[in-house]
Amino acid sequence: MHCVVEILSVGNELLLGNTVNTNATWIAAQATAAGAEVRRITTVEDNLGEISAAVKESLRREPNFLIITGGIGPTFDDMTLKGVAKSLGRRMKLDPNAVVMIRNHYARRFEGKVMKLTKPRLKMARIPERSMPLFNPVGTAPGVSLSLNRADIFCLPGVPSEAKAIFQQSILPKLRARAGGRPYLEKWVKIEGIMESSLAPIIDHVMSRVPGVYIKSHPRGVENGRSRIELHFSIFAATRSRGSQALRRAVYEMNEALRHRATKAGHIS
Amino acid sequence: MHCVVEILSVGNELLLGNTVNTNATWIAAQATAAGAEVRRITTVEDNLGEISAAVKESLRREPNFLIITGGIGPTFDDMTLKGVAKSLGRRMKLDPNAVVMIRNHYARRFEGKVMKLTKPRLKMARIPERSMPLFNPVGTAPGVSLSLNRADIFCLPGVPSEAKAIFQQSILPKLRARAGGRPYLEKWVKIEGIMESSLAPIIDHVMSRVPGVYIKSHPRGVENGRSRIELHFSIFAATRSRGSQALRRAVYEMNEALRHRATKAGHIS
Repeated sequence: MHCVVEILSVGNELLLGNTVNTNATWIAAQATAAGAEVRRITTVEDNLGEISAAVKESLRREPNFLIITGGIGPTFDDMTLKGVAKSLGRRMKLDPNAVVMIRNHYARRFEGKVMKLTKPRLKMARIPERSMPLFNPVGTAPGVSLSLNRADIFCLPGVPSEAKAIFQQSILPKLRARAGGRPYLEKWVKIEGIMESSLAPIIDHVMSRVPGVYIKSHPRGVENGRSRIELHFSIFAATRSRGSQALRRAVYEMNEALRHRATKAGHIS
Repeated sequence: MHCVVEILSVGNELLLGNTVNTNATWIAAQATAAGAEVRRITTVEDNLGEISAAVKESLRREPNFLIITGGIGPTFDDMTLKGVAKSLGRRMKLDPNAVVMIRNHYARRFEGKVMKLTKPRLKMARIPERSMPLFNPVGTAPGVSLSLNRADIFCLPGVPSEAKAIFQQSILPKLRARAGGRPYLEKWVKIEGIMESSLAPIIDHVMSRVPGVYIKSHPRGVENGRSRIELHFSIFAATRSRGSQALRRAVYEMNEALRHRATKAGHIS
């Protein structure tokens, strides 16, 4: 089954240019490998109106999964959950299971010492009505999952190790199930001495010969007067063996076309 | 004057998780340093409908600048300019100045040898009606600029060195002029041995004491049982000296509050 994913990253640091959005790239790679299609990544500020607007806009595009990172911690500017609640017209509630998770986290970390559940600590247990906390194996703030008619929404912390741990434990199995194990295969090929503008018609030719394979050229600059390009061959295939066969065939066709061109021109350039 | 920027990144590689979106982070840092506010970053696929929809959505939010990267090269899946034209109901035209830029680029690169302007090469000179090519000092495809009533749109190549060169030459001066030189200042402070949930009320306290300064906490994990947090202090100030005074004061207030807490508790934790 086709499975469309959107990622929403929340955090001023991403918009100030302080932090490269590696969370989104990591999640995108994981989702792609699971056979899903990540159709959009959006980054917004720590601002209630911005978060709520971005969630609404995303849901209007009807993805199967909306994965949100950042803004679920204890500080004043962690407002992702409130933004999600607002976008859905839901209230926030103190979730008893989330309270237990947080209490246990502190007990684990401080060897049984009972930490006072202060307001900022309890804030991490305040989640939208009819949502569920997701166990955070490496940090304090639980993730949150929320099922709508069309879409599942997941909220993860912005700290990469925590986002990854919750993603792998609680989201990846659902992505895989929904995408139905449609295998994604890829292959990188480096070529030298041909400009992207000369390669363009060859890419068209090879793609027309091997349907389903997508070829993307990534120019990597010029060295000693010779263009360097990395070609990325990818396919979402019905089966792994058909996919790898198609990729092999596309790489073969590409080599043939380049050889033919070299013979004709006397050199590859 | 307030200057709001949106960034739109175009490229399947970003959504497949192959490539970290360092272009967006770099542009965001540059725009922030110029005094502008980057309010949103959006990433979409190499797909005409997706690009055109994202441009329309962005313009509806009325930023002063929309900076687009990726998808202006010679291959079949470079369709950003067509997407922009579509979103504005404009046609594409072959721009004579862009043709000259491309011709000169090849002449420069191949020591005066006249390169045939094949279809893929001329494609890079096909830009939306009433838009302007921007000189690309390090690559082939010109950037594109387009002025609407409310917003200026800029299209840059996805190759980082080319995006940076065109940005610095053709966009940064306009951003600076529009933002009116509102200086942005920041300071990082590392602290150890206090959890983010304990720090949260202290951040609130310090921010209330020094208006204008934004304090964001970035948890960096736990080492030897001690939490490590980086605090980011930032301000958009009227003048550079007022800004740096406010930052110094906020860091001082933070130290005072932490010292007070440590004295009260007997230790920082």
